[in-house]
Amino acid sequence: MVTAARELDPERTAVGIGIAAPGPLDPAAGMVIRMPNLPGWHDVPLATLVAEALELPARLHNDASLAALGEALAGAGRGASPLVYLTVSTGIGGGIVIGGRLFEGRHGLAGELGHILLDPAGPTCGLGHAGCLEALASGSALARRAREAMAAGAIPADSVLLALATDRPPAASMLAAAALQGDTWALAAWQDAGQALGRGLASIINTLDPERIVLGGGLTAAWDLWAGAMHEALAENAVTWPDRACDIVPADLGDDGGLVGAALWVAERLG
Amino acid sequence: MVTAARELDPERTAVGIGIAAPGPLDPAAGMVIRMPNLPGWHDVPLATLVAEALELPARLHNDASLAALGEALAGAGRGASPLVYLTVSTGIGGGIVIGGRLFEGRHGLAGELGHILLDPAGPTCGLGHAGCLEALASGSALARRAREAMAAGAIPADSVLLALATDRPPAASMLAAAALQGDTWALAAWQDAGQALGRGLASIINTLDPERIVLGGGLTAAWDLWAGAMHEALAENAVTWPDRACDIVPADLGDDGGLVGAALWVAERLG
Repeated sequence: MVTAARELDPERTAVGIGIAAPGPLDPAAGMVIRMPNLPGWHDVPLATLVAEALELPARLHNDASLAALGEALAGAGRGASPLVYLTVSTGIGGGIVIGGRLFEGRHGLAGELGHILLDPAGPTCGLGHAGCLEALASGSALARRAREAMAAGAIPADSVLLALATDRPPAASMLAAAALQGDTWALAAWQDAGQALGRGLASIINTLDPERIVLGGGLTAAWDLWAGAMHEALAENAVTWPDRACDIVPADLGDDGGLVGAALWVAERLG
Repeated sequence: MVTAARELDPERTAVGIGIAAPGPLDPAAGMVIRMPNLPGWHDVPLATLVAEALELPARLHNDASLAALGEALAGAGRGASPLVYLTVSTGIGGGIVIGGRLFEGRHGLAGELGHILLDPAGPTCGLGHAGCLEALASGSALARRAREAMAAGAIPADSVLLALATDRPPAASMLAAAALQGDTWALAAWQDAGQALGRGLASIINTLDPERIVLGGGLTAAWDLWAGAMHEALAENAVTWPDRACDIVPADLGDDGGLVGAALWVAERLG
């Protein structure tokens, strides 16, 4: 890996490796605490393992936190502070950047925004939290909801979604395709997800009063399906909305946000 | 007021007036945006009015934010960063201090922690938010819940609370007295409030990863009635609890936190 990078650009020297991984993790210790979707990953010293294998210093941080830094310094968050970033994808991760620097909190765990709590009666996320933002508005939450509704026979027989999901389990992308074809059940599911996202953002705004919120991750491709419900929930629940509001904009860097942020972050630490 | 202060200590010069008021308000403009419990207070330029009346520069900020600063610099939050402060009283206010400085957000509105959302099926606060922390765990939330239960005949006839509330409407202090005498209904109400507080703090911890949380306000006098339920909710919902946890401690400065913070804040700005 390092050799390949050196061959690509022999003029430049790698000062170290920045690793963007799903959280929760302990950046100071270079340690993955848990990976809810990867059993066996518990207190793994990933930074040390990579540093030894590649013979370069390595630093580890949460992928969403690093994407926040990437967007803040080189993407849709430039010039805004405080800047909040959310990845809305299979899971939901987040990051907070203040004055161009990643806000870490005491243990490097700040910005676990997928796990703010919204509804004690809601379904449970991979970490076991009932009704957190991730359990209500992530891609896996939408897919699980469709799966359960199909199993319960709660989706109308003429639904586009049923036709799309005949030979594969339902996924967020199918719900988007169905909603764009006018499927009522899928449209309502996106609006519920948008409402949960808006309520989550209202809690974040009431806590941090950010200048801008950048939304990335696969589900932002379906922006028009949920943005209306999100804005309604913001108007109801953010303390001074729409006066003294913040911009909510899509990410600029796509899937590369975490990599760009990792490079900028490790260069600052090791450069 | 200024004359009286000068007579108290003629050796010292007042550099200005710091005003701690309930939010939401706009510190940069010195403007009270709204006071949910005081109708007619809407976009009032309070700092200018006070400065003109007292012929000294005046600055305005949220009372809970200033209490956060007071506790961070001169109270139970000394040495901890990030430091989160919550007043749990008639309402619930908050403040965030990072590295000894008040974290303001874009418009000075950061730390409206009473209005993080916890339960869409919950009752409504004075600003109209369904199921926010203030609507579930404040003194007025407890009193309203007791009032509604009494009106519905849902409190057992031999309840201590009913005996205490025969000639006055129920208040949080009565619920505390009743619970301390073993009143089952009152005990359960405190535990529900403690659970809501714990879920709110879990959202705050998942967002900010604070080193310490300081709790002030009248309801902290009933600490033993709700702390157990609060800690259970934290263990369930804070991402890495109890590892990498934060201290949760009572405030040191009592009702003076906001005044101490206002003095420190305005001295830094005007001194």
